[in-house]
Amino acid sequence: MSNEIARRGILLVLSSPSGGGKSSIGRALRVTDPNLDLSISLTTRPPRESEVDGKDYHFVSDARFDEAVQGGELIEHAVVFGARYGTPRAPVEAALAAGRDLLFDIDWQGTRQLRAALPGDVVSVFILPPSLAELERRLRARHADDEATVWSRMDKAAAEIAHWDEYDYVVVNRDFDLAVASVRAILAAERLRRTRQTGLASFVSALLA
Amino acid sequence: MSNEIARRGILLVLSSPSGGGKSSIGRALRVTDPNLDLSISLTTRPPRESEVDGKDYHFVSDARFDEAVQGGELIEHAVVFGARYGTPRAPVEAALAAGRDLLFDIDWQGTRQLRAALPGDVVSVFILPPSLAELERRLRARHADDEATVWSRMDKAAAEIAHWDEYDYVVVNRDFDLAVASVRAILAAERLRRTRQTGLASFVSALLA
Repeated sequence: MSNEIARRGILLVLSSPSGGGKSSIGRALRVTDPNLDLSISLTTRPPRESEVDGKDYHFVSDARFDEAVQGGELIEHAVVFGARYGTPRAPVEAALAAGRDLLFDIDWQGTRQLRAALPGDVVSVFILPPSLAELERRLRARHADDEATVWSRMDKAAAEIAHWDEYDYVVVNRDFDLAVASVRAILAAERLRRTRQTGLASFVSALLA
Repeated sequence: MSNEIARRGILLVLSSPSGGGKSSIGRALRVTDPNLDLSISLTTRPPRESEVDGKDYHFVSDARFDEAVQGGELIEHAVVFGARYGTPRAPVEAALAAGRDLLFDIDWQGTRQLRAALPGDVVSVFILPPSLAELERRLRARHADDEATVWSRMDKAAAEIAHWDEYDYVVVNRDFDLAVASVRAILAAERLRRTRQTGLASFVSALLA
């Protein structure tokens, strides 16, 4: 709408242990929200069967990743499950300036670095599973993961969950639709924060003129 | 629900100039939200025709108001349009501890004092009119206000609006339903703030046990 107040974009971080629901929730949000794009990370891990280069990740070599780090092209980068992940800087800065929001599916390490780099722009949400039994059930329902992967991810889940208290918001994913609605409300509210609505001062000036 | 995480209540402040929509929005919120009560202020002004003592306000004498101030019964108090208004302390403390939310229809002076008294518990929203012409139209549509009152309120509106930048959130009330949905999202999001969900630490401990 032409009468909307100009605002700065939001970097919306969803973190959870594998199987916690961050990716499904993120997809559901983006389906209904034309102003929310996915931040596409660089990674050195090989693509899964369903993944598309440039859509899910930018799949790169170790050498290319090194180059991106050294050239200052990444806002944050971390090693997860032995593979390297990083967030390109240029799309983030473009989104913030244009008032577009970016969704980040990153872990606590990446969240820490992103917050350190752009503290006022990050809104972080931790998705908790209702129980570890439910988390295991969800991991097993994923055909892509073999038994060893399930156990490895269960081991890592506890370590990831231990960082829940570094996040702005916490959503317990008992019911998928409710969890999506919760994150949607968080995004809607954060868009209304005074400090984010950069066009308010001039709107009020015009109002009182 | 019995599996909800215990949390501290929220003191939700809606401020706007007269005719800005804070009271109508507050009513619409409370109709659909069983966890949101109205904070009932003490006031020394006489009741309007439609107002009920103990429901809209506690209508009291100047002497009783003095007594409440001196007895420390009020969290904040201010003079508006020559009448005194104050917020009783006991219901606020009970609501915060029980995880119930309280809605405050107070001006910027009251908001400042409430925030100073309970900084972590206040969520403040300023409702802006889309234009002063629209504000005047809304004030004239109120049969309770005579011409002199309309002009007096229009004079005060600019002074109230000047304090928009002391609020956490700002909502422009162009469309009533949209404004209600916006404040509803703010309340839903704030309920999910980590720092407000006091039961999370024990929930996570049980999860990982």
